[in-house]
Amino acid sequence: MSSTVGQTIKCKAAVSWEAGKPLVIEEVEVAPPQAGEVRLKILYTSLCHTDVYFWEAKGQTPLFPRIFGHEASGIVESVGEGVTHLEPGDQALPVFTGECGDCAHCKSEESNMCELLRINTDRGVMINDGKSRFSKDGQPIYHFLGTSTFSEYTVVHAGCVAKINPNAPLDKVCVLSCGICTGLGATVNVAKPKPGSSVAIFGLGAVGLAAAEGARISGASRIIGIDLVSARFELAKKFGVNEFVNPKEHDKPVQQVIAEMTNGGVDRAVECTGSIQAMISAFECVHDGWGLAVLVGVPSKDDAFKTAPINFLNERTLKGTFYGNYKPRTDLPSVVEQYMKGELEVDKFITHNVPFSEINKAFDYMLKGESIRCLIRMQE
Amino acid sequence: MSSTVGQTIKCKAAVSWEAGKPLVIEEVEVAPPQAGEVRLKILYTSLCHTDVYFWEAKGQTPLFPRIFGHEASGIVESVGEGVTHLEPGDQALPVFTGECGDCAHCKSEESNMCELLRINTDRGVMINDGKSRFSKDGQPIYHFLGTSTFSEYTVVHAGCVAKINPNAPLDKVCVLSCGICTGLGATVNVAKPKPGSSVAIFGLGAVGLAAAEGARISGASRIIGIDLVSARFELAKKFGVNEFVNPKEHDKPVQQVIAEMTNGGVDRAVECTGSIQAMISAFECVHDGWGLAVLVGVPSKDDAFKTAPINFLNERTLKGTFYGNYKPRTDLPSVVEQYMKGELEVDKFITHNVPFSEINKAFDYMLKGESIRCLIRMQE
Ligand SMILES: NC(=O)c1ccc[n+]([C@@H]2O[C@H](COP(=O)([O-])OP(=O)(O)OC[C@H]3O[C@@H](n4cnc5c(N)ncnc54)[C@H](O)[C@@H]3O)[C@@H](O)[C@H]2O)c1
Ligand SMILES: NC(=O)c1ccc[n+]([C@@H]2O[C@H](COP(=O)([O-])OP(=O)(O)OC[C@H]3O[C@@H](n4cnc5c(N)ncnc54)[C@H](O)[C@@H]3O)[C@@H](O)[C@H]2O)c1
Ligand SMILES: [Zn+2]
Ligand SMILES: [Zn+2]
Ligand SMILES: [Zn+2]
Ligand SMILES: [Zn+2]
Repeated sequence: MSSTVGQTIKCKAAVSWEAGKPLVIEEVEVAPPQAGEVRLKILYTSLCHTDVYFWEAKGQTPLFPRIFGHEASGIVESVGEGVTHLEPGDQALPVFTGECGDCAHCKSEESNMCELLRINTDRGVMINDGKSRFSKDGQPIYHFLGTSTFSEYTVVHAGCVAKINPNAPLDKVCVLSCGICTGLGATVNVAKPKPGSSVAIFGLGAVGLAAAEGARISGASRIIGIDLVSARFELAKKFGVNEFVNPKEHDKPVQQVIAEMTNGGVDRAVECTGSIQAMISAFECVHDGWGLAVLVGVPSKDDAFKTAPINFLNERTLKGTFYGNYKPRTDLPSVVEQYMKGELEVDKFITHNVPFSEINKAFDYMLKGESIRCLIRMQE
Repeated sequence: MSSTVGQTIKCKAAVSWEAGKPLVIEEVEVAPPQAGEVRLKILYTSLCHTDVYFWEAKGQTPLFPRIFGHEASGIVESVGEGVTHLEPGDQALPVFTGECGDCAHCKSEESNMCELLRINTDRGVMINDGKSRFSKDGQPIYHFLGTSTFSEYTVVHAGCVAKINPNAPLDKVCVLSCGICTGLGATVNVAKPKPGSSVAIFGLGAVGLAAAEGARISGASRIIGIDLVSARFELAKKFGVNEFVNPKEHDKPVQQVIAEMTNGGVDRAVECTGSIQAMISAFECVHDGWGLAVLVGVPSKDDAFKTAPINFLNERTLKGTFYGNYKPRTDLPSVVEQYMKGELEVDKFITHNVPFSEINKAFDYMLKGESIRCLIRMQE
């Protein structure tokens, strides 16, 4: 057992002191896990749009100083009282949404929106005592999404930690803890395209490309990528996307363009943009009788989804998904296995990679739209 | 073999000469069935709102003279060339939508919206030759929904005729050919509530009561009926509805009232009103994580379905259905079996009953909102 158990750990963390300002690597103190919590040693983390979004803090209540980061992989350093599914040394993925195992959602086969541990972007403290486990010189530093993985050590609710295969390469499976699973699950768990079917993917960012990977794994034969930025199309070919539509290049609404390409509509559509217009188009481009559209993108607060009700009456289905309908603890281990067996390709999502000391470069790559995922190595 | 085969038959039909005017029982001529058609002897028919709607012809292109009627039961009198699944003497239900067996919809497990024989309210003739099989003194009389069952004999496309159990009581199963199956299927085929679950039914007309019957059969424990007319509630108890909400009696939106009654929302909702407001409420009153709402009501042309997209993101599903997703030829025989086995109750839907000569009374009962279904006996 590590000598750090039960002790406060001093380690490096990338602290965000102010909205939009470069993170600063600081020495921070990480308190031991309380009952139901786990302290993780983070080995790899990667940057997701959600980190950037809350770091920019445009349109949200700013909460600083804060340690961002929620896509990561690591090893359990120690566990708090009552934690039975994890032990020190386990390989694990922290997840921004959890699975308490006891609430109606955790007990439902259909939901992964745990009542207790559901994503909460406003909370900057642990649920247990309403306090932070991070501090610097006695000043508390806020958590982010209950994960705060831009730190060598972090404390996470045990319900938000998935134990995975001890042989899984942590520098790869790291990216499964947010964006990739979100897109992948939207296709394989929710849209469920049949082999030989057609799938339209709206938005070819990390989430959309993961949705395309799901369509490829499912054996879809036509995978139509839709993006406003044609530069995305070349890259998307690696992800199985084999047809492309840029709505800007057509006079007609894109749903009509797609219907004409597919004899009445696609079998499935997955929206991964956050644009309300794309959500409406994704729904309206599926075939009547059997078409199903899945919404993944996070809309703006005042957006309204609007369509003619006859589009539903003609037997179209519209669903939304959160984290690809994966239950973090129950389902993530088997996604890791899919990768281990070579069914799921993950490496192609990791386009960049930097040491922890250069974490701000990861922000630059993302802001310039150059990276899909930039891996951040905690140990230089 | 009947001596009428291949001959024109003279018989009585209730002809609608003018929009909104009482039907007139006339002697008409019914031509023999052409290739792929069937001539049916109608024994029972019942009145559905759709007949009344097109008879009133408000907002549609009027097509007169016309023989209405689409809910019925009868016996095959003769079949046209190439019809193999039916023969004279078979007990059968004509249906306003069909199943050609060959199109993409018929081949899909998910759709019942046959490309060829899908409902068409504007067509007043047979598909085969674009002509009517009905005439009076040489003047053609238009068909309605390809069924025109307000006639002792009618000609129907064979794809729109389901062969049923020869022992089924035709005076009961008659009502399965439209409204009852629409509501029943919306629940059992599409909403699929689990035993012990909660189901909200919007609109307690014939379709909504059939949806409630579906919830009862499925073992739902809370069946919440929502209607603007509280008088509907007493009757609805017979159909398993055990809680009631009249939106007019509340200051809050009905979706909020229901969410408060059910700890966050119902498991399933089925909308059977045609009101866009009820469609939106039905969707917004289902529980996040697993809630599913099904739209059945036929909206007005200019209605827009509008909701916040976050309602989808929180893992709610919205589907529409047409004729309860039943494929007429494939599925109706087993619905009749369900009735024969006593699982499905049909008798309680038939609240009135008149001889053919008094068919206009059936219109009165419906217009006054007194009847669920009024059976019309073709043979006095
Ligand atoms: N539901 C969840 O659990 C979950 C989890 C993570 C991310 N997300 C959301 O998924 C969405 C995509 O995330 P990402 O990281 O891939 O974002 P991204 O910004 O990298 O990619 C979005 C892509 O969509 C394209 N786009 C924007 N508007 C479009 C339109 N109208 N039509 C076609 N393409 C359009 C952009 O050009 C871009 O390429 C975001 O809204 C994000 O918030 C959801
Ligand atoms: N999709 C199909 O295949 C199909 C087939 C047949 C009928 N329908 C449609 O189903 C609907 C119901 O048919 P029906 O014959 O039962 O009609 P109905 O008129 O007998 O019943 C409708 C009920 O809804 C109630 N209602 C109206 N607005 C409401 C609101 N905002 N909130 C709550 N209750 C409200 C009315 O008071 C009435 O009791 C109609 O729109 C009809 O066109 C659809
Ligand atoms: Zn839970
Ligand atoms: Zn993320
Ligand atoms: Zn067909
Ligand atoms: Zn009807």
